[in-house]
Amino acid sequence: MRKLKNSELERISVDNFKNSKKTPIIVVLDNVRSALNVGSAFRTSDAFRIEKIYLCGITSTPPNKEIRKSALGSTNSVEWEHAEKTDEVVLKLRKEGYLVCAIEQVSNSVMLNNFKSTEKPLVVVFGNEVNGVQQSVVDLCDVCIEIPQIGTKHSLNISVSIGVVLWDLFYKVNQ
Amino acid sequence: MRKLKNSELERISVDNFKNSKKTPIIVVLDNVRSALNVGSAFRTSDAFRIEKIYLCGITSTPPNKEIRKSALGSTNSVEWEHAEKTDEVVLKLRKEGYLVCAIEQVSNSVMLNNFKSTEKPLVVVFGNEVNGVQQSVVDLCDVCIEIPQIGTKHSLNISVSIGVVLWDLFYKVNQ
Repeated sequence: MRKLKNSELERISVDNFKNSKKTPIIVVLDNVRSALNVGSAFRTSDAFRIEKIYLCGITSTPPNKEIRKSALGSTNSVEWEHAEKTDEVVLKLRKEGYLVCAIEQVSNSVMLNNFKSTEKPLVVVFGNEVNGVQQSVVDLCDVCIEIPQIGTKHSLNISVSIGVVLWDLFYKVNQ
Repeated sequence: MRKLKNSELERISVDNFKNSKKTPIIVVLDNVRSALNVGSAFRTSDAFRIEKIYLCGITSTPPNKEIRKSALGSTNSVEWEHAEKTDEVVLKLRKEGYLVCAIEQVSNSVMLNNFKSTEKPLVVVFGNEVNGVQQSVVDLCDVCIEIPQIGTKHSLNISVSIGVVLWDLFYKVNQ
């Protein structure tokens, strides 16, 4: 089991990324406070070749020093757009045929392991570090997905949640 | 889909956590540089009720201000121990009957989605932010697990990797 050098990993170039077929998943960040979390969202979205990231409300946008620190260049590969209002993005994407999923703990959420991917491309909405996805945005979503947790704390860090959800859905849509 | 209050999530207390049956997975951090990543490892390990965390080599230990910032109290629930040498921890746990898995990109790694959980309890070893798991430690492991990635960057952030791997294995060992 010899560790591989970076050059042996044969990652694709930014140009090839841009021209490649994407994983049919869009990430929406609803008023995320920390630019480090935004950068991490880019890095994870790059790894799973996500279609696009919407940065909504107060969510920072590139160029930004903190985003750069955790994105490590992945803002060049992953397509992104800023939008003032998260609800308008959600409505637009639903009209375009996406199944919009808020990642939230709600009264009738679907546990991530029970979520079945459908024919529709997916949108996953992640919320603010303290307040989560706004209730008004939750109200516009098709479904809420929850990451099952059996510990003492209420939630996972948003960067970790994005990793967990994108890995799980990336695997499901590629099956 | 009404957002739940923290009190409605019915999380367990620290005492109940300590007395509860754990997920049969141990996390080993091999010379992790950032205390924020260590705190995140605690928070994620709390969420999936992980058995124990070994903090090896230069990896920071509680109490630590940066760990506290991202662990948010989960250092009180999750059992941990510091060890000078990662290889000694790996050898000890293998002797105790654990299947020890390095999370690394190596010449014959098993992709995470192809990894089947066995009867044995698991150990997952995560490495330094720049250098990964030391080759000498990889050499002592039973298997290397790799998170499939199809982007431009070489790897995921370690906090995100821990989330992805623990979620995937937590789900598999509970099936």
